[in-house]
Amino acid sequence: MRFVLKLEYDGTGFVGWQHQDNGVSIQDILENAAAALNHGKIPNTSVAGRTDAGVHAEAQVVSLDLPDHFTPLTIADALNFHMKPHRIVVLDAARVTDPDWHPRFSAIERRYRYVILNRRARPARDAGFVWHVKRALDSDAMHAAAQSLIGRHDFSSFRAAACQANSPLRTLDRLDVRREEEKILIEAAARSFLHHQVRNMVGTLKLVGEGAWPIARVAAALAARDRAAGGPTAPPDGLTLTGVGYPIDPFDDG
Amino acid sequence: MRFVLKLEYDGTGFVGWQHQDNGVSIQDILENAAAALNHGKIPNTSVAGRTDAGVHAEAQVVSLDLPDHFTPLTIADALNFHMKPHRIVVLDAARVTDPDWHPRFSAIERRYRYVILNRRARPARDAGFVWHVKRALDSDAMHAAAQSLIGRHDFSSFRAAACQANSPLRTLDRLDVRREEEKILIEAAARSFLHHQVRNMVGTLKLVGEGAWPIARVAAALAARDRAAGGPTAPPDGLTLTGVGYPIDPFDDG
Repeated sequence: MRFVLKLEYDGTGFVGWQHQDNGVSIQDILENAAAALNHGKIPNTSVAGRTDAGVHAEAQVVSLDLPDHFTPLTIADALNFHMKPHRIVVLDAARVTDPDWHPRFSAIERRYRYVILNRRARPARDAGFVWHVKRALDSDAMHAAAQSLIGRHDFSSFRAAACQANSPLRTLDRLDVRREEEKILIEAAARSFLHHQVRNMVGTLKLVGEGAWPIARVAAALAARDRAAGGPTAPPDGLTLTGVGYPIDPFDDG
Repeated sequence: MRFVLKLEYDGTGFVGWQHQDNGVSIQDILENAAAALNHGKIPNTSVAGRTDAGVHAEAQVVSLDLPDHFTPLTIADALNFHMKPHRIVVLDAARVTDPDWHPRFSAIERRYRYVILNRRARPARDAGFVWHVKRALDSDAMHAAAQSLIGRHDFSSFRAAACQANSPLRTLDRLDVRREEEKILIEAAARSFLHHQVRNMVGTLKLVGEGAWPIARVAAALAARDRAAGGPTAPPDGLTLTGVGYPIDPFDDG
């Protein structure tokens, strides 16, 4: 039986979602916990978005096969027990009834939030969850510049060299920047993103926010279709996958 | 020269504000860092509110004496450097010009926030910053019950046995309870609080929220003036000192 899980995690200290030989991944922790429900055998998992090292999730979506006598609630509780004390939890679980459904290929939207802590003092409470930028940022200028990235474009200027996507074309539906006291919140939504696209866009908007770039230079960077024309990659700490959208909510049990 | 500092800290793993023989305190970290600016001598500090082990602060207020050739900005930056990697930072610093001013005795308001994570899954992102309560809580009932505690009362029913205050009389100005998605936020304000008063009030309101206590029992518990009549003490994790009020803002340099 195939099940779907909604996961929250603190990505700090992990090598990212995907298994790597040089550290512990979110996938490793989840699969090892799931093996306890699967006669000791590690089940295969599929994920909506492979988050990078240090990137967090509030609603990652994962599917895996487990014996069909378990209820979704039992699976969630058992995985949360076995994943202790790691900062990874199952928030919701459901059975997958459509054999063609896939957490990655069926998704029609990914939503991310990026948080910049914009003050002189380094973060204490929020260490690991923000990018600390000391110089005062103009969030209105950042938001204005961000709007030039909305729509269907070749995002090569914001694409990691290691990106394995077939095409650099993506449709960015939303890139909102606003200030909340000491924090700058950046919310992005698209059907899918290129590797490092959000962090590269954020690193570029930060240049606008501190006045190093005029607003119009972001549109010019996009038009260059050249990674060298884009700004630097923002650190992973500030990034959280906040949601994945599907034509039908896989967690809606009717 | 006397200086005043505004501190943010993650209280996790510390024995609280005050020095104790059984672990590391916030005070220890601050004073050891300050000694580096004071010819190696640990300066005396005074604090607005002695937070307990595991309790956090967004705006704790502390005074200390340091050589007067330092500017407030230099002190803040130097302390933040020397307190690394501890999750304690100086957000603001200023000179104290009134010799009668004292962070504790001059304060006219303390503000606290308490956060309950009200869902089935244990916290991942917010571990250490919330009280995890699985059973669904009725925040409206909690808020209604909280209003019966507003005003000047004998708070013996919500006072820790170890409380060293001369009188159990306190004036509670604000105790608001509201839900934000999976979280219940409780905001409290008073000139001062008894030891464990906020956590004991929260532990009692939680009983109302889960339906174990009718709303009216909170007023009856208060009237009993007996700790045995109050509810249990909520854990420290969810509690944050969010602000301290003074007749004149000590950080306002005019």
